[in-house]
Amino acid sequence: MSNPMTVFDSNPEILAKFKEGKDGVKVAASPKEVAQHSSVIITMLPASEHVNAVYFGYNGLMEGASFGTLFIDSSTIDPHVSKEIAAKVEAAKCHAVDAPVSGGILGAEAGTLTFMVGGKSEQEFSQAKVYLQLMGKNIISCGGNGNGQVAKICNNLLLAIGMIGTSEAMNLGQKLGMDPKLLASILNTSTGRCWSSDTYNPCPGVFENVPSNRGYTGGFGVSLMAKDLGLAVNAANSVKANIILGTLAQQIYGLVSKTEGFKSSDFSSVFKWLQGKTPNSN
Amino acid sequence: MSNPMTVFDSNPEILAKFKEGKDGVKVAASPKEVAQHSSVIITMLPASEHVNAVYFGYNGLMEGASFGTLFIDSSTIDPHVSKEIAAKVEAAKCHAVDAPVSGGILGAEAGTLTFMVGGKSEQEFSQAKVYLQLMGKNIISCGGNGNGQVAKICNNLLLAIGMIGTSEAMNLGQKLGMDPKLLASILNTSTGRCWSSDTYNPCPGVFENVPSNRGYTGGFGVSLMAKDLGLAVNAANSVKANIILGTLAQQIYGLVSKTEGFKSSDFSSVFKWLQGKTPNSN
Amino acid sequence: MSNPMTVFDSNPEILAKFKEGKDGVKVAASPKEVAQHSSVIITMLPASEHVNAVYFGYNGLMEGASFGTLFIDSSTIDPHVSKEIAAKVEAAKCHAVDAPVSGGILGAEAGTLTFMVGGKSEQEFSQAKVYLQLMGKNIISCGGNGNGQVAKICNNLLLAIGMIGTSEAMNLGQKLGMDPKLLASILNTSTGRCWSSDTYNPCPGVFENVPSNRGYTGGFGVSLMAKDLGLAVNAANSVKANIILGTLAQQIYGLVSKTEGFKSSDFSSVFKWLQGKTPNSN
Amino acid sequence: MSNPMTVFDSNPEILAKFKEGKDGVKVAASPKEVAQHSSVIITMLPASEHVNAVYFGYNGLMEGASFGTLFIDSSTIDPHVSKEIAAKVEAAKCHAVDAPVSGGILGAEAGTLTFMVGGKSEQEFSQAKVYLQLMGKNIISCGGNGNGQVAKICNNLLLAIGMIGTSEAMNLGQKLGMDPKLLASILNTSTGRCWSSDTYNPCPGVFENVPSNRGYTGGFGVSLMAKDLGLAVNAANSVKANIILGTLAQQIYGLVSKTEGFKSSDFSSVFKWLQGKTPNSN
Repeated sequence: MSNPMTVFDSNPEILAKFKEGKDGVKVAASPKEVAQHSSVIITMLPASEHVNAVYFGYNGLMEGASFGTLFIDSSTIDPHVSKEIAAKVEAAKCHAVDAPVSGGILGAEAGTLTFMVGGKSEQEFSQAKVYLQLMGKNIISCGGNGNGQVAKICNNLLLAIGMIGTSEAMNLGQKLGMDPKLLASILNTSTGRCWSSDTYNPCPGVFENVPSNRGYTGGFGVSLMAKDLGLAVNAANSVKANIILGTLAQQIYGLVSKTEGFKSSDFSSVFKWLQGKTPNSN
Repeated sequence: MSNPMTVFDSNPEILAKFKEGKDGVKVAASPKEVAQHSSVIITMLPASEHVNAVYFGYNGLMEGASFGTLFIDSSTIDPHVSKEIAAKVEAAKCHAVDAPVSGGILGAEAGTLTFMVGGKSEQEFSQAKVYLQLMGKNIISCGGNGNGQVAKICNNLLLAIGMIGTSEAMNLGQKLGMDPKLLASILNTSTGRCWSSDTYNPCPGVFENVPSNRGYTGGFGVSLMAKDLGLAVNAANSVKANIILGTLAQQIYGLVSKTEGFKSSDFSSVFKWLQGKTPNSN
Repeated sequence: MSNPMTVFDSNPEILAKFKEGKDGVKVAASPKEVAQHSSVIITMLPASEHVNAVYFGYNGLMEGASFGTLFIDSSTIDPHVSKEIAAKVEAAKCHAVDAPVSGGILGAEAGTLTFMVGGKSEQEFSQAKVYLQLMGKNIISCGGNGNGQVAKICNNLLLAIGMIGTSEAMNLGQKLGMDPKLLASILNTSTGRCWSSDTYNPCPGVFENVPSNRGYTGGFGVSLMAKDLGLAVNAANSVKANIILGTLAQQIYGLVSKTEGFKSSDFSSVFKWLQGKTPNSN
Repeated sequence: MSNPMTVFDSNPEILAKFKEGKDGVKVAASPKEVAQHSSVIITMLPASEHVNAVYFGYNGLMEGASFGTLFIDSSTIDPHVSKEIAAKVEAAKCHAVDAPVSGGILGAEAGTLTFMVGGKSEQEFSQAKVYLQLMGKNIISCGGNGNGQVAKICNNLLLAIGMIGTSEAMNLGQKLGMDPKLLASILNTSTGRCWSSDTYNPCPGVFENVPSNRGYTGGFGVSLMAKDLGLAVNAANSVKANIILGTLAQQIYGLVSKTEGFKSSDFSSVFKWLQGKTPNSN
């Protein structure tokens, strides 16, 4: 990408890393200033209120945006909020897509992230894809605005359930006397198979390069999973959809993230929590 | 197999089908008589008490067995019971393996069943495999006696959790406005992927040749799933393993199997139950 | 009460009942007109958005209110919304209390309702009590604005859990062979005792004048309980409080309220739902 | 009581306390010897297997019993086992009642225990009552053999659910800003009221003489509650009764009893567990 990039972060320490000027990156003093220098803007923020503030607040992006600017929001937030934001952006004659991401820090470093994109039409998706594929491997069109969030929320709901389920099944089998590697190999050629069992097994010793085999460090933290499940519960209640295992998964990750020793652990550490242990104990 | 086969069933109507004598099958008057004519015996029965009765009851298999007979029990029962049975069979100088099966009626007809085999040594496994591979595609060695049951129970525990989780995620996404086929395709290339989402999706219209696309007929009934989950709960309590989602899944399938309209439906019909609908309603 | 009363309802059929003019009740054309004629205003509405619309919308109460008017909102809504409303009302130099109610239609007819009141100070509470005690028996001060909602939400959370728990215990005991009346009498002198077991028992035949003894008609509907539990889940997530049984209770009442035959039943009908039956079946 | 009492315990240290001979108590060398000297025998043992061993094992009670002996078993065990034991005792021309107890160590010391009695007829109950009322305040007839167990199991199921529910409601209210004492007083005059809220409140500072106000010491331990809930789950599965909140309560107490710091705490400490804290932390 030959065009220069303008960046902003509310944390001065983060911004300082860019001030050294390498790679020709320009540092802005506000979101507004970012918008004044950009025709495509990517945001990634913790929650709905931050996105609203950065887009529509004082010195926010919309104060500096020109007609036709493309806003790509990679935050994971409430789909209804993404829709509302898109409507306001469209009213200002700009374009908006929601593009939440999965893949974690390792995926970001390796450029193998997955982006789930919701936008008004194929055109916005194609334009966003040009930029997102610089960071990710899978750029998936999910339909209209907000649908990127819906896909992300549904995926992580099922992921959490699969991870807790895999932890329960692996722990049960081991306590009943089975070798965990053998058990995993059987599950993974049978109907119990899931991503948590065949790619990211939470039982130490089954796979090599996964968090469970390095004290549950790295990966996707329990608090982030708890946050995403909170979004799923809100979304489900907003449309009166029942998610029984999902709400219980939300409660479980809420409890795990409060438990001494688990606060910065990968979400597969729920395996240890079920045993009444800490991530590093045996 | 050139040797004749001797069969018995407590239901005379089933036995009558064999009495016509085709395929040279011999019909016995009791389990004892089966044992008198056989060196390898395969049983498949509903629950522990039936297996005990057929093996050790009046006119049971052990009354007719010769030294060295191989007993293959393909019932899905409590692993502790399988171990006890194997110990008694060994004491009578015979051999025993537990070999529960998955794959359903369709798998049985097509000869593509999976058998999970627990036995004393490689020798029993190899001998049993000769016969089991006539009926199944995957014959898996799971370790010592009872471990076939452990593998089956753990697999179906995870399967039930994955199926309910997939139903929750598919239903939520659809209610939030996503196309189910698109949602399934995203989940199946992401971390939410599981057998229930990528092979046996419970949402009608996603895949063609699955029960959800034919009114949830055929397949693996909700009552059988409820039964297997009951075994999982018992096994978990016996070793004080926590299975939080698992116990809730057991309660859910217990409720589904009591609900008007679901009694003979495939276990993927939990998708409809979550919506407060019957398997055939829209 | 010698002072005239002014009433408004968005449903003309309800208003027509008052138009006959008996009891000297005046019928208004809008909330604004109610406020123009009143120094104390009582509202009871389904959800937060309705309260906001009636208070602050076009032709709403605030358009017609004089300084010093006391607003009593008896809706059951999000405590955060009650706080926000109170702040706006105070800013307009009026007074506000939240005063959600329990006791149902029967309590309303008999004048035995319970009001849980949240307000700025003892003064607002005392003033509101003068009016509320014309409708209710227990007028309870719960502290600051929003705390009436908090008390109501916490009470109904525990009520729902106690009702499902009582249903499970009564059903289990009966299936294990105990007489339900005897079981209830034992629970009610022991540590299992709760309002749902000793006052409103969900098992038919235990008490006479309760919904369970008249086909679960009358009383507090399953949908209203589902709604209140939705508020509890939202409130809990807003402060990261774990309510494990509570979220499951919310899911259960959500499912019950979707189940054919339960839509207008009393919330104690969960007893029948657990049995896979409809409220009127045996 | 003028008649001498004969005692036995498998732990010699316990027996040594009686060997001093005060109160004219005789120490036996085995259960058999107790039976040889007694016409009424009271047992209290951890689990079904111990009761079976003490009654029917080598040097067990039945080896020494005379015709007409009354056996009172105050263990909390599976109701089906109590029935089986009673049948064998009757076959030996003796009498049997199951009489599980609640009230804890404090109740035992104060003589205020509650006994729930299951027996063949009014006669066995009356005879047992003569002895049980020396230790307890409430001696309740629950019907036929096994029903004492059923009543105890159903009561403790509901107690566990009420305690977790009360903990959730008290914690939620406090986090939303309410004073716990005020909240408890409101719940206890409303429909959320239960024994756990009005007599044994789990939130520190609400009541004085309860475990929550002394670091959750004394009282009824989390492991004993987990054990009783295990019996409830088994009993429920044996009759296909659904206990959704009950199975979750069993899982919760199983997890609490495994969590560092909770192993010897009163069951009301689940309040702290929900907060991710230990019983003594603030």
